[in-house]
Amino acid sequence: MTESDLPVVEFHPYRWGDPTAPAELPDAAAGALQALGVTTPERGPFKVDEIPLAQVALGEQAQSELESIVGAEHVTSEHAARVAHTRGWSTPDLLKIRAGDASDAPDAVVYPETHDEVLAVLEVCSRLRVAVVPYSGGTSVVGGLAPARDWFAGVIALDMGRLNQLVNVDPVSRTATLQSGVRGPEAERLLREHGFTLGHFPQSYEGASIGGYAAARSAGQASAGFGRFDEMVVGLELATPRGTVSLGSAPMSAAGPDLRQLVLGSEGTLGVITSVTVRVRPVPEQRVYEGWRFESFSEGAAALRALAQDGPLPTVVRLSDEAETAVNLTDPGSALSGGPGGCLAIAGYEGTAADVTARRAAASAVLTASGGTTLGTEPGEKWRTGRYRAPYLRDPLLDAGVLVETLETVTFWSNLDTLKEAVTTAITEALGEQGVQGLVLCHISHVYETGASLYFTVACAQTTDPIGEWRRAKEAANRAIRECGAAISHHHGVGTDHRETYGEEIGPLASDVLREVKRTLDPAGVLNPGVLIPAAS
Amino acid sequence: MTESDLPVVEFHPYRWGDPTAPAELPDAAAGALQALGVTTPERGPFKVDEIPLAQVALGEQAQSELESIVGAEHVTSEHAARVAHTRGWSTPDLLKIRAGDASDAPDAVVYPETHDEVLAVLEVCSRLRVAVVPYSGGTSVVGGLAPARDWFAGVIALDMGRLNQLVNVDPVSRTATLQSGVRGPEAERLLREHGFTLGHFPQSYEGASIGGYAAARSAGQASAGFGRFDEMVVGLELATPRGTVSLGSAPMSAAGPDLRQLVLGSEGTLGVITSVTVRVRPVPEQRVYEGWRFESFSEGAAALRALAQDGPLPTVVRLSDEAETAVNLTDPGSALSGGPGGCLAIAGYEGTAADVTARRAAASAVLTASGGTTLGTEPGEKWRTGRYRAPYLRDPLLDAGVLVETLETVTFWSNLDTLKEAVTTAITEALGEQGVQGLVLCHISHVYETGASLYFTVACAQTTDPIGEWRRAKEAANRAIRECGAAISHHHGVGTDHRETYGEEIGPLASDVLREVKRTLDPAGVLNPGVLIPAAS
Repeated sequence: MTESDLPVVEFHPYRWGDPTAPAELPDAAAGALQALGVTTPERGPFKVDEIPLAQVALGEQAQSELESIVGAEHVTSEHAARVAHTRGWSTPDLLKIRAGDASDAPDAVVYPETHDEVLAVLEVCSRLRVAVVPYSGGTSVVGGLAPARDWFAGVIALDMGRLNQLVNVDPVSRTATLQSGVRGPEAERLLREHGFTLGHFPQSYEGASIGGYAAARSAGQASAGFGRFDEMVVGLELATPRGTVSLGSAPMSAAGPDLRQLVLGSEGTLGVITSVTVRVRPVPEQRVYEGWRFESFSEGAAALRALAQDGPLPTVVRLSDEAETAVNLTDPGSALSGGPGGCLAIAGYEGTAADVTARRAAASAVLTASGGTTLGTEPGEKWRTGRYRAPYLRDPLLDAGVLVETLETVTFWSNLDTLKEAVTTAITEALGEQGVQGLVLCHISHVYETGASLYFTVACAQTTDPIGEWRRAKEAANRAIRECGAAISHHHGVGTDHRETYGEEIGPLASDVLREVKRTLDPAGVLNPGVLIPAAS
Repeated sequence: MTESDLPVVEFHPYRWGDPTAPAELPDAAAGALQALGVTTPERGPFKVDEIPLAQVALGEQAQSELESIVGAEHVTSEHAARVAHTRGWSTPDLLKIRAGDASDAPDAVVYPETHDEVLAVLEVCSRLRVAVVPYSGGTSVVGGLAPARDWFAGVIALDMGRLNQLVNVDPVSRTATLQSGVRGPEAERLLREHGFTLGHFPQSYEGASIGGYAAARSAGQASAGFGRFDEMVVGLELATPRGTVSLGSAPMSAAGPDLRQLVLGSEGTLGVITSVTVRVRPVPEQRVYEGWRFESFSEGAAALRALAQDGPLPTVVRLSDEAETAVNLTDPGSALSGGPGGCLAIAGYEGTAADVTARRAAASAVLTASGGTTLGTEPGEKWRTGRYRAPYLRDPLLDAGVLVETLETVTFWSNLDTLKEAVTTAITEALGEQGVQGLVLCHISHVYETGASLYFTVACAQTTDPIGEWRRAKEAANRAIRECGAAISHHHGVGTDHRETYGEEIGPLASDVLREVKRTLDPAGVLNPGVLIPAAS
């Protein structure tokens, strides 16, 4: 199985992933849930067709103008479509929709087919003050799809699914232009016909799309080898209410600021990315994934730092802390799980056979010298083949009464231990104050020469107000991240959930700059209102 | 000799480099100059103290407020200081000052010592409408230091030379914070005390500074190994008329657009960069530089592309075309010079001994398989030790009546041959129309997976109007670059020289964005007026 073999699937509105392959809780989980004091909720989630929706607020004129642009058959206010386009995939998003709250549902879903249609839709929506939520994979976990309705005359989800073409491949320059609605697996399938891969495999791979990767400044699990998505992008087309911005005359240049980096991470607030030109690479000949054991997280982190700073970097490299290793949710029967402690690291190599052999030998020497013990390829291959399955477990956990959510951050190496400790303590205490015992797991998922990301998974019993319960834990984590001087997100983004903390992170003047950039491109403020751009103080 | 052994020198106001080590034209040059129809100009350049300067326009209030901020001894309107801070180092800049035209001289030079003093200076200048030219190395070759005087009540050069500290080194994260006035050689000397190097060696290394590297989005000759300066920067402090912007909570993040990339390349128009936190690396144990011969530029370019796309990349890699190889200005007695054609490539390796050995072996195999023949280390070491000397030759060439200048661009690999041909033809024809035979040399100086830069050196006889002569050639080159869809600069920047073409490159809407960002941070528009930001149409 490789990434291009995965099918493009339609997610259920509130259950993650391929609906034909739902996850079940392992038997081993029962004891753990009991220990956390979890009890099964009295009532299960609302069925999709039972979820109440507000009256469609979109006026007749907007409806008819939008229909005349994209065709009447590509504007819908059907119940299922509105529910499916409500919010994203954070646990609070799921808790709301499961509880029958679809108050953020769009009034209509609009499916443009071309860049020019997007331009025309934005013109109409600006003129008629209709909020526009650019939507492709819809996998945001930071409230990036929950617009402020404010004074708008309605909200549409602008679904990019029909912009799904591989527009161009330049095999000499090794670039490809993909429209923003192409989903991860489809992008790989299209590129593979030309012998190429994008190499971008975030955990949301099955659902996310090219436009979302760009808008959310995504980082895939293979970022050590293939780079972050922002490093892959050499050009892009942005449709705004005031017209088109085309960027990318060259791989890199000194011709002014790199404005591509202003669009990447703009989360649909400055315009709608309609296509992206990315660097591609030959499909790897070989893949080898291996597990390693370290005595402690600190020891393992030092090993990863040695690889990041002095090389060679594997294609994938990650390290679970003691708690995450002990739980090992995706593989509860593994050698390390429940064992005598230690931390599991994964090192994966992809490339030509010669490259994989050489890099693996050199990296293994570094890992061994740093105190690591190889566990062979079995845990590595298990991780690789199961890598997209972890989020599937959330749905049965929520069903069982567990509150489970993730958050992540990034800092410089010298600050990593402090940050990890501060966030763990903040979450544990915030849950403790609510009478809840929290389980906080952590791993390093992305490494750089100067620092690394930390990814936390939190599990605990749901109280009677699980949304408020998580909000308090999350606010405590955000404060800890800010106090440590770390970034509020490594790859999830800002959305609505991090907007305030993000504003503190960049400060009032940089926030002003963002507001003015938005005002310049989106004078009516219709694009994803309430997301990303810090409010004026 | 390594980069940290080079002294920090004060350039003569219009002669490049260490004034104690001027270059002389090799005897072999005489024939070439005769063939180009060069005749020695009747009169030599103005002496510095003979260059006329306009009356100091700065009012008494500005003078006194500035003095109260930085101290009276750090505000000067002395003749030599004003001349030394007039414009930069492009050939037109030199032709003007040599001809006694210092009409762009600042009224005063102000030397702040702290970030807060910079803030205070900007406040005063905004209030009193005094234009501010941030100045550190002063080595711009694109008119980046030639402000529009317009309606301003005077112009000051804000010389960052007293902000010259290494503020912090984090050996665990391998980062260092340097103030913006630290010159290249001093930065290396300071970092070497901690065992580190920046690895940033642009040809202007002897004169340029940290702040300039950042503001101009510099790329050093070792960018293949050490990365571009924009890739090294993890944080920065920007002083603006409205206050401070501090960026860089983490190596990389998804917390919004990467605003660092909006400041890098802003060329002093959005604020004054007062310090930069950069990624540093251990001082290399070993350096090996080698020459290679390719039969043709196309063959050599394909070899460099193979290295950039499939690895391994040398630390330095460059390729001269047939014309540049034949001339080989810096080493006219070399094996290839005047020989039977062919193209000289340089491949340099720096790192641990093991890394250098392994990378050199693997890269050499690729170069050989691509048709290259090794010339051994002699031409490589000659290039390495002479790398900063080439610009020294310009002064005696100008003295002798030669018009010599460089320009550069960057594009994707599949467009490289087209671009090279188009630019060469455009320059040759534009000079031909003026009755001048031009010599156009070209090399690839920076490579990426998806493309490469092209660096052109042009030499011809000076007409009676050498400034106009070059302007017409340059305009033709700019048009050719635009028509090929390439970027107007790979590493020289925009300045005033490229402002119009840059506006065409990014388009009217992105130009609007830049204007609004500037207006937000610099409402009075005093920062480097006329530079970079495209004029409203």
